[in-house]
Amino acid sequence: MTTVGILGGGQLARMLALAGAPLGLRFLVMDTVADACAGQFAPLLVGDYRDESALAEFASKVDVVTFDFENVPATSAEWLAARVPVFPNPSALAVAQDRLAEKTLFRELGIPVPEFMDVPDRLALDAAIAAIGTPCILKTRRLGYDGKGQFRLKSSADADAAWQALGAQAATVGLILEAFVPFERELSVVAVRGRGGEFRAWPLTENWHVDGVLSASLAPAQVDAALHHTAIAHARALAERLDYVGVFALELFCRDGVLSANELAPRVHNSGHWTIEGAETSQFHNHLRAVLGLPLGDTGMRGHACMLNWIGAMPDAGPVLREAGGHWHDYGKQPRDGRKVGHATLRSDSGAGLMAVLARAGEGLGRQAQVAPVLDALRGR
Amino acid sequence: MTTVGILGGGQLARMLALAGAPLGLRFLVMDTVADACAGQFAPLLVGDYRDESALAEFASKVDVVTFDFENVPATSAEWLAARVPVFPNPSALAVAQDRLAEKTLFRELGIPVPEFMDVPDRLALDAAIAAIGTPCILKTRRLGYDGKGQFRLKSSADADAAWQALGAQAATVGLILEAFVPFERELSVVAVRGRGGEFRAWPLTENWHVDGVLSASLAPAQVDAALHHTAIAHARALAERLDYVGVFALELFCRDGVLSANELAPRVHNSGHWTIEGAETSQFHNHLRAVLGLPLGDTGMRGHACMLNWIGAMPDAGPVLREAGGHWHDYGKQPRDGRKVGHATLRSDSGAGLMAVLARAGEGLGRQAQVAPVLDALRGR
Repeated sequence: MTTVGILGGGQLARMLALAGAPLGLRFLVMDTVADACAGQFAPLLVGDYRDESALAEFASKVDVVTFDFENVPATSAEWLAARVPVFPNPSALAVAQDRLAEKTLFRELGIPVPEFMDVPDRLALDAAIAAIGTPCILKTRRLGYDGKGQFRLKSSADADAAWQALGAQAATVGLILEAFVPFERELSVVAVRGRGGEFRAWPLTENWHVDGVLSASLAPAQVDAALHHTAIAHARALAERLDYVGVFALELFCRDGVLSANELAPRVHNSGHWTIEGAETSQFHNHLRAVLGLPLGDTGMRGHACMLNWIGAMPDAGPVLREAGGHWHDYGKQPRDGRKVGHATLRSDSGAGLMAVLARAGEGLGRQAQVAPVLDALRGR
Repeated sequence: MTTVGILGGGQLARMLALAGAPLGLRFLVMDTVADACAGQFAPLLVGDYRDESALAEFASKVDVVTFDFENVPATSAEWLAARVPVFPNPSALAVAQDRLAEKTLFRELGIPVPEFMDVPDRLALDAAIAAIGTPCILKTRRLGYDGKGQFRLKSSADADAAWQALGAQAATVGLILEAFVPFERELSVVAVRGRGGEFRAWPLTENWHVDGVLSASLAPAQVDAALHHTAIAHARALAERLDYVGVFALELFCRDGVLSANELAPRVHNSGHWTIEGAETSQFHNHLRAVLGLPLGDTGMRGHACMLNWIGAMPDAGPVLREAGGHWHDYGKQPRDGRKVGHATLRSDSGAGLMAVLARAGEGLGRQAQVAPVLDALRGR
C-alpha cells in the first residue's frame, strides 16, 4: 500500500486523490486550514508548512510527497526531501517560485521571454525602467498568483506609485520589473515527465483570463503545427534541465505568431482540467503515474474541449448537465469573492459541435460573455 | 450540500463516491465491516443493516439513500424510505432480491425467461423436476450471487443431492427450480432511469463468466441491431413497470439469436465498469444524476472497450498501464480467494485496435485465457 502525501489541500489535491484511488493509492493531504476541500475525500493533516513537528508527522505517514500548491517554503520541501522522495524536486520548485530565477532559466534555454530586471531597491527600479522602457510591470519575485502582487507602469512617472504599492516587499519576497508585452493570445503547454525521463504533452491549450484569473480554456488551441511544436519543445527543454518529475504547465504569450514565456507552474494546472474528460489520460492520473514511477498514459485528445471556470459561486448545473458532452466539477467549497469554486468541461467530437454546445450552455448559464472569446477562436477570428 | 447515503461499502460504493465528488456531493457509506474499501474515500458508518439505531443514525445524516449491495433486507430499505428518499424504491429492490418475483415479472412483461417453479418443499422439487425436465438448476430465491446457492441437476436422480445441498434454505430464503438453458452468449443491458422517467441505455455488453464470476466484458457487444433493440426494450419495460430510479443491469442469455432473461441487478453493475473510460458518462455518474433528479448524461460510447476483472489478487499493472487505452482500477482490498479486488479497462477507437491491445496486455499479464474469448468475439467467431 502506497500513501501519497500532498502539500496543499485545495481542488488540485482533491482531483489528484480522486484520480489516484483507482491506482490503489491512499492519500494524506496537509493544509493550513481544517476545511480544505480535499479533506472531504482524503485524510487531512492541519499544520503550518514551516512547523517541523507537523512536517515530521506528515513525512512519517507517506511514501512520496507532491504538491497542490507551489508556494510551500522551499526549505520545507528540502527538509521533507531529506526524509522521503519529493516530486517535483525542491530545486525545480525553487526555480518556479522565483520569477527572477525562472526567467533567467527561460533565457538560458533560448526560450523567448520579455525583458526583465531584478529590483532590489528604489534606485534599481529607476534604472530598470530606464533600461526596459514603459509600459512595464513591477511584480513580486515570489508568492504572486492570479495577478496578485503586480503593479503596471504606463510611464516612468508611475515609479513612485509602484514603489509605494510594492516597495516594502523588495526586502522580503523580492521584486522584478518586466517589459509589458501586448499579446494576442495566451497559450499553455501542460506536460508530464516521468522518473525515467519519459516526456509527454497534451495538445496546446488556449486560455482567457479575466481580472488575472483563468476564465476559459480551449483545447486543442487553434494554432499551426510549427508553433505547436515549438511550444512543446520549450516545455521539454525546461523539464529536462530541471530534472522535473510530474505534471507542469508552461504559460506562453503569443503575438504575430511568436511565442514568449510567461511562467512555469510546477504542478497540475487549471488549464489542464479539460483532460479529465477530454483526453485518454488526465493530467491528474499522469501526475501520479509520474510521481510513482509508473508508465505514463496516452495524452491524446478526444475531440475538442472547453473548460469554463466558476469563480466566487457555483452557477446552476442544469445547462451544462443537459449537454451530451457537459461535465460538472464542484470543488465542495464555500462561496467567496474571487475564489475558484468549480469548473465545467464541455466536450464534442468536432469543433462545430463544441461551438453549438458552448453557445447553448453559455446562454442557459447567462454566461455569454465568458464563452464569447472561445466561440470567436473556434470561428477562426 | 447534499449527502448521499450508500448501503454497502464495497467497490461499487467506492466508485460511486469517486464519481460523485465532482457533483459537489458528500457521502456516507454504511457497511457491516470496518475495512469496507469505500471507507478509504468516504466516511463509513459500521453497523448491521437490521439494527434500527444504526439505520436511524444513517438516515439522520443523509439526504438520499442508494445501494451498493442489493441484499440489504427489504424491511430495512422500507424503514429508511419512510424517513428519507430511497432510490431505487424498496419494492423494486424486493423484486430483484427474489428470483421468483423477478422471473414472474419477466414473464408478465413478455420478456422470454427459462421455465421456473417455486420449490417450497421436497415434494415440490419432484413436481418441478417432472414439469420442467432436466437438466435444471435448483437455486435459492434470495441472497444468491456470483453462482453461490445453486445446484445443477443432470437428471431426476440428482434430486436428493440437490435437496441435501440447499433444502434447509427452503424455509428461510426460499428455493426455485429453473430449466437449464444452454446458451451461446451472455449479454447485459446496463441502463438508467431518472426520477422524471427519462430512460437511457449504454450499448449492449457481452460477458464471460468463470466459476460463476464475471471475468471479462466487451462493449459494444457484436450483435445485430434488432437484437440490440429488443434487449434495450426489455430493460425499459422493466424499469417502467418498477418505477425504477437509477442504474440497473438486465442480464440476458442468447441462443440462436433469441434472448432470454437471467436476472435484474438493481444497482451499478460489474458489466458496466467499462463506462468509466469508454462512455461519455459513466454508470456511476448517471446513477447519481438519476438519484438526485439531475439531467441524465449521454450514454454514447467512445470506440470499443474490454473490462477484465481481477479476482483474488491484483496482477502487475505494468502491461495495462503501458497500453495507450489501458486504465487500472485497484479497489484497495486485501487479497482473498474469489474476491473481486480490481479490474482493468482497455479502450481503443477501433475493434482491430482493441484486439491488438488485448493480445499484448493478455500476454504481458500472463492472462491469455482470460482475453481469448473476447478476442474470439472481436474476430467474429
